[in-house]
Amino acid sequence: MTDDIQDTQTQDTQLTAAGNEMSASFLAAKKRSDATLAKLEAEPGKFTMLTGDRPTGRLHLGHYFGSIQQRVAMQNKGVHSNIIIADYQVITDRDTTEHIQDNVLNLVLDYMAAGIDPKQTMIYAHSAVPAENQLMLPFLSLVTEAELHRNPTVKAEMEASGHALTGLLLTYPVHQACDILFCKANVVPIGKDNLPHIEITRTIARRFNERYAKKNPVFPEPAAILSEAPEIPGLDGRKMSKSYGNSIMLGATAEETAKLIKKSPTDSERTITFDPTGRPQVSALLTTAGLVTGRDPKEIADEIGAAGAGALKAYVTESVNEFLAPHRERRAELAKDMDYIRDVLTDGNKRANEVAEATLDEVREAMGMKY
Amino acid sequence: MTDDIQDTQTQDTQLTAAGNEMSASFLAAKKRSDATLAKLEAEPGKFTMLTGDRPTGRLHLGHYFGSIQQRVAMQNKGVHSNIIIADYQVITDRDTTEHIQDNVLNLVLDYMAAGIDPKQTMIYAHSAVPAENQLMLPFLSLVTEAELHRNPTVKAEMEASGHALTGLLLTYPVHQACDILFCKANVVPIGKDNLPHIEITRTIARRFNERYAKKNPVFPEPAAILSEAPEIPGLDGRKMSKSYGNSIMLGATAEETAKLIKKSPTDSERTITFDPTGRPQVSALLTTAGLVTGRDPKEIADEIGAAGAGALKAYVTESVNEFLAPHRERRAELAKDMDYIRDVLTDGNKRANEVAEATLDEVREAMGMKY
Repeated sequence: MTDDIQDTQTQDTQLTAAGNEMSASFLAAKKRSDATLAKLEAEPGKFTMLTGDRPTGRLHLGHYFGSIQQRVAMQNKGVHSNIIIADYQVITDRDTTEHIQDNVLNLVLDYMAAGIDPKQTMIYAHSAVPAENQLMLPFLSLVTEAELHRNPTVKAEMEASGHALTGLLLTYPVHQACDILFCKANVVPIGKDNLPHIEITRTIARRFNERYAKKNPVFPEPAAILSEAPEIPGLDGRKMSKSYGNSIMLGATAEETAKLIKKSPTDSERTITFDPTGRPQVSALLTTAGLVTGRDPKEIADEIGAAGAGALKAYVTESVNEFLAPHRERRAELAKDMDYIRDVLTDGNKRANEVAEATLDEVREAMGMKY
Repeated sequence: MTDDIQDTQTQDTQLTAAGNEMSASFLAAKKRSDATLAKLEAEPGKFTMLTGDRPTGRLHLGHYFGSIQQRVAMQNKGVHSNIIIADYQVITDRDTTEHIQDNVLNLVLDYMAAGIDPKQTMIYAHSAVPAENQLMLPFLSLVTEAELHRNPTVKAEMEASGHALTGLLLTYPVHQACDILFCKANVVPIGKDNLPHIEITRTIARRFNERYAKKNPVFPEPAAILSEAPEIPGLDGRKMSKSYGNSIMLGATAEETAKLIKKSPTDSERTITFDPTGRPQVSALLTTAGLVTGRDPKEIADEIGAAGAGALKAYVTESVNEFLAPHRERRAELAKDMDYIRDVLTDGNKRANEVAEATLDEVREAMGMKY
C-alpha cells in the first residue's frame, strides 16, 4: 500500500516475496483484483482508494511508473482518492526523523506536479490524524501476536534493519489497517509483496463487524488491486536504492539527470542489445528510455546498435528529460509558493480528521463506548 | 496504575508478583517511593498524579481501601489529579464490551460519592481521547517486542485468560505509558505488581527525550508510589472476585450487604478468634470489620468471643453498613441526576483532550512532524 521511497530494505523484501508469486493465494488475489478492476471501470464513483508513501526521500521515476501514474488515472476516473503520507512509518526501522518536513512537502509537490488534484484527492499526513490512530487500540484486540509475526514484510524488514524488532514494526500491519479502514477504502493498489497487509486488514474488518457490528457492519473488506506495472530497475541494473544512487529523481534538474546517466556503468561490448539477464546495465538504460518514450526497448537497441553506450546515454538523457520537462516545470512553478503547498496539506489533514472522527464515532457507538 | 475490578485474573497476577517482593529492584522502588512521598507532602502542587480503573464491574470495599481513599486524600492535599477510566483495557483479554456504559457511569458515581471532586480531579474515558492514543505510535517505536514480553503482567494475564496473546494485551504496557505521559504525570500510585509498567514508562520517556528532545525534554520520568494498603480478603477469606461473589459493593443496599454477609461461610469452632492462616473465613470477617471501624480485628474477636459467628456477622453487617451509609446516601443522591454524571464525564473528556492535544503538539514539534 505505502511505497517505500529509495529504500534498499523494502526492495529486498519484494525479492523475498516474489518467490511465492504463483501460489494459490496469489492467484486467488489476482482473480479478485481483476474482478474489482472490472467493477471499478464500470462504476468508479462506488470506490474509495487509499495509497501512500513513506516520506524517507524524494520520488523517482520508479515511483512515477509504479504508482503515481495509476493514482492520477484513478482520480481522473472518479474514484474517491486518498493519499496518506505515512510519516510514522519512517520510524518503524529508523531512529531518526531527520529531514522529514522537507520530505513530506516534496512529496506533495511531486503529487501535484504529476496531476494529483487536491480537490479530488485527499492528501494528508499520518501524524496529523489522531482519530485514525486511535483505531489502533480496538484493532490490536482483534489480532494475535502470532498473526502479526506471520506477516512476511514484518519479518523481512526486521531482518533487513539489523535491529531488534520494535513494537512499531511488529504492529505495522495494524497501522496499515487503520490507514485503509478509517476512510473505509474498498480498493487498495499494491504490489504483490503487500498482499498479506490487505489480508490482515480484511480479517480485522471482518472480526470487528462480527464482534461489534453484526447488524450494521462498520467496515468494508477492502480488495487489493495488484499493480500491473513492470519492475523498473535502477540505472545500473540493480534495484533502485538511495544508497546505490541509481534512480532518476522526478524533481532533479535536467543537468543533474544528465550527469547521473553519464556516470551510470555499462559494459565493454560496443553494440547495444536488449538482454536484461546478460547485460543488465545497458538493458536498464534501454528499459528507462522505453518507459519514457512508450517505445519497445529492443527497437531502441536496434536503432542505436553500433553507435554504442555514448549514443545510448545521450538518447536516454534526452528522452527522460523531455518526458520529465512538463512535470519539472509544474513542480518548479508550484515550489515558488510553498505556503500554498502547506495549505494543501493543512486542508487535507483537516478533511482526514473529519473522516476519521466520523468513523471513530461509529466505532465507539458499535462498541457501546458512548458516555 | 489501573486497578482491575473484581477480576480473578489480576488477583492471581498479584500473587505471582508477590514472590519477588523483596528483590533489589523492589527495595530500590520502595526507597524512591518513600522519597517521592516525602517531597509530595512538602509540595503537593508540584505533583501530577494519574490513576484509574478498568470498567469491568462495580467498585467494592477492596477498591475503597486499596485506592479510592488514597486518591481522595491526594486530591485534597492539592496534587493535580487525573483518573482514567480505562475502557479499552476491558478488551485486552475479553471479546466483549457488554455493560460498559453502565460500568463507566457507575465508576463516576462511586468516585464522586467517595469524595472525588471533578473540579479538582480530571475524570475521563480512555476511548474519548484520540490525541492520547496517538502517542502509541511514537512510543511503540521506542520499545522492542522482547521488552514487551518481559513484562510479567502481560505474561500472567495472557496465561490466565486462556486465549492467544492479542496485540492489545502485548502492547498494554505502552498504552499505560501513554495514559501516564500524556498528562505528564510524575507520580503514579500502584501495587507492587505494577512496578514493571512504571519502569517501561520511565524507559519510554527517557528514550523519547534522548532521541527527539535532548534540549527541552518533553516527558518527566514518573515515580511510582507503592501502595501501603493491606491486602483485603473477600468475605470467605479468598481473593475478592466477581466469580466468587465475595465482595461488598460500595453501591449495594444495606439489605444486599446483610444478605451477602449472612451467607458467607465460617467454620465449626464457636469461639471467634483472629487467625488469618488457620481460620481464613472468620478472620476475613474480622478484617473487614476492623477496616470499617478502624479497630484492631483481635480486639473485635475478643469482644465477640463465645457469642459465635452469628454475633460476628451481625457486628460486621452493622459496622459495614454504618461505614458505607454516607457513601451510599451521596451515591443515591447523585444517581438521581445521571445527566449530571454524564456532564462530569463529558467535561473531563474535553479537558483530557485539551491536555493530550497540547502534549501531542510538543511531540510533533520535537519529531519535526509539523507541516
